[in-house]
Amino acid sequence: MVKMLRCIVVLTALVVSAHGLDNGLALTPPMGWMSWERFRCNIDCKNQPNDCIGEKLFMDMADRMVEDGFKDAGYEYVNIDDCWDLKERDSAGKLQADPDRFPSGIKKLADYVHSRGLKLGIYNDFGTKTCGGYPGSLGHLEVDAKTFAEWGVDMLKMDGCYADVKTMPQGYSNMTKALNATGRPILFSCSWPDYERASKIQPDYKLIAKNCNIWRNYIDIQDSWDSVLKIIDYYAQEQDTLAAVSAPGSFNDPDMLIIGDFSLSVEQAKAQMAMWSILAAPMLMSNDLRTISPEFREILLNKEVIKINQDPSGKMGKRVMQETGIEVWSKSTADNKLAIVFLSRRTDGIPTNYSIILQDAGATSDGTYEFVDLFTWKSLGKFGKRDTMEVAINPNGVRMLLGTPAKTAA
Amino acid sequence: MVKMLRCIVVLTALVVSAHGLDNGLALTPPMGWMSWERFRCNIDCKNQPNDCIGEKLFMDMADRMVEDGFKDAGYEYVNIDDCWDLKERDSAGKLQADPDRFPSGIKKLADYVHSRGLKLGIYNDFGTKTCGGYPGSLGHLEVDAKTFAEWGVDMLKMDGCYADVKTMPQGYSNMTKALNATGRPILFSCSWPDYERASKIQPDYKLIAKNCNIWRNYIDIQDSWDSVLKIIDYYAQEQDTLAAVSAPGSFNDPDMLIIGDFSLSVEQAKAQMAMWSILAAPMLMSNDLRTISPEFREILLNKEVIKINQDPSGKMGKRVMQETGIEVWSKSTADNKLAIVFLSRRTDGIPTNYSIILQDAGATSDGTYEFVDLFTWKSLGKFGKRDTMEVAINPNGVRMLLGTPAKTAA
Repeated sequence: MVKMLRCIVVLTALVVSAHGLDNGLALTPPMGWMSWERFRCNIDCKNQPNDCIGEKLFMDMADRMVEDGFKDAGYEYVNIDDCWDLKERDSAGKLQADPDRFPSGIKKLADYVHSRGLKLGIYNDFGTKTCGGYPGSLGHLEVDAKTFAEWGVDMLKMDGCYADVKTMPQGYSNMTKALNATGRPILFSCSWPDYERASKIQPDYKLIAKNCNIWRNYIDIQDSWDSVLKIIDYYAQEQDTLAAVSAPGSFNDPDMLIIGDFSLSVEQAKAQMAMWSILAAPMLMSNDLRTISPEFREILLNKEVIKINQDPSGKMGKRVMQETGIEVWSKSTADNKLAIVFLSRRTDGIPTNYSIILQDAGATSDGTYEFVDLFTWKSLGKFGKRDTMEVAINPNGVRMLLGTPAKTAA
Repeated sequence: MVKMLRCIVVLTALVVSAHGLDNGLALTPPMGWMSWERFRCNIDCKNQPNDCIGEKLFMDMADRMVEDGFKDAGYEYVNIDDCWDLKERDSAGKLQADPDRFPSGIKKLADYVHSRGLKLGIYNDFGTKTCGGYPGSLGHLEVDAKTFAEWGVDMLKMDGCYADVKTMPQGYSNMTKALNATGRPILFSCSWPDYERASKIQPDYKLIAKNCNIWRNYIDIQDSWDSVLKIIDYYAQEQDTLAAVSAPGSFNDPDMLIIGDFSLSVEQAKAQMAMWSILAAPMLMSNDLRTISPEFREILLNKEVIKINQDPSGKMGKRVMQETGIEVWSKSTADNKLAIVFLSRRTDGIPTNYSIILQDAGATSDGTYEFVDLFTWKSLGKFGKRDTMEVAINPNGVRMLLGTPAKTAA
């Protein structure tokens, strides 16, 4: 009897762990803000006090997230990326924030962020140095995990520069244990599979999903539409592998949202928003929320699009069609709705009229679906799975539709 | 004595013709609007009455140009591109506008455009068919020139599809003669060098400048930042050849402005505006002026940037520096001012701080220049030619500066 019980417990644990890291976090894709893409390793707080990696930047962003509606829309994490610390550990071997740029210290910054109802993320590196040349965590995993927990940190992104890629599966798993051992729930973001891919090693995604809440699997996003499209290409190419491990607690991370930065037009920004939504990607903005234009803020705050991203199924959408510069991506939600993204890579000036039979876009219900456009909130009417839908898609743009099955008589 | 006089007249004529087609037009780069990039060959006026190639589109754009400040800023031509006519000539061998889409006819449309203080442009093709498959002008040059003149057309773009490229130098020159013979001043835009380039024939730019007011020399622009950058690359690569023939009456044409369309961000739109300005390029917008956002309209209406484009020297600016994703382009104006464009192709999130000694950017005056930013209208202060100027340039963006030499004591 006792043995039987243990057996059930073990089985349950296995079932849970197969659905992701068992720390109760990231049951839906994490949402928030992260410094890297927009502010990089700018440590010149003397000349650029508003734009440097220092406590003011993160407090400013926390304020904007609360006061401009981002928190209400679900954005929660305020994440410090690389270049936050001194180049040496202290005498006790601990990482220490640069006191000129973080005069109050990370703990006080965490307190501030918590006081605003948000969570704080931080960054380290699995190797001897971070990508920006700051102290790495190799040989210091436990002390760093403890330090982050003591400071009240809620999320950790562990990068993989200056490291032996072959040691990552074991090493990142050790960090998972070290984080769990602190007793503080810390969402764990791993760069491990990205470094494996770059070294032509096939990532063991089951192991990764067991140890990480989210993980990067492809190159860093840059401020360009080409970069967004390249990432989408990779996700399409690897979609069977990646979709298989997307679940509550464990998500593929195609990198930050660059909406509101220098490169994306409004159409392209809608496209990134829709694609990251249907991919069940972490929604980590990297932009300047103090100066973002209203049209980009509106895109980031689109509650219907966010709802698809935050669908409790945790499923990653897949590309079901690709022709003449138009792609169709599709995802079923936990409540059997059907989300469809029509993405146009075309550059030929006028909207493309594209037709699809709905079952080719993932419709399975024998009844009808009522379709709504998630950017215009207009109804497109009712369609059965064998019906053809025609949509006009702007070049460099998307249409994102949600189909709700009609209620059938009980 | 008579002989001497004739000799002087011939010499004068030669001097004038070396500075471009002698029809008194395009003394500065023509400005206006053109249908192609944004509206293509959309002839579906039944289903898309507002977006098809028909008289309504051109009347709408003329109205917007007048009422929204474009005419006041210098935009003048309203240009019909391909796909305006019937697939057959009439019984007299004349081209005929599609009566369903141009029920009033081109002459009435020209009257309307003229009544609004603007000019009308039209399109034909040197070969047997236009690129869109409509009747070509081969064998009909005289009758087509006469038809356009009778209709009151003010500008003609002659494309080069379905043609023998080797016959273009003679053939386009024949069209120049045919246009001159009508007695109506018609600005002549030639696609001839672009087709020669594509056929790996070195264009004879002196002959081209003698026969054409503007000419396309590179591929069609598409709705993408990559396309804009590719065109700039070509202009940089060929700048010595191209700048040599840029003069009042004769301008290189890097194709339309796509500002306000689907792909360019605000930064990228400023970059195209600044670059087309310093290149002394025709400023032919292809966009929807009925729905363009205010931030893009403001860029297109920037009077200071337009003034550099419209500089009476007719000179094309040149690239004087290129490093780490930053380019410096420079042009001296007729009144010895110095225009500089700093263009960033970078995608790395933060503005680049870039330093240059001003004489490396084209400064020659021994006195100082007072520099002003043409997008913010802020002064940067005074600099001598040996001084170093440091500017911050956004990724995907530009800074455009104008330096005015200080007045020296008489």
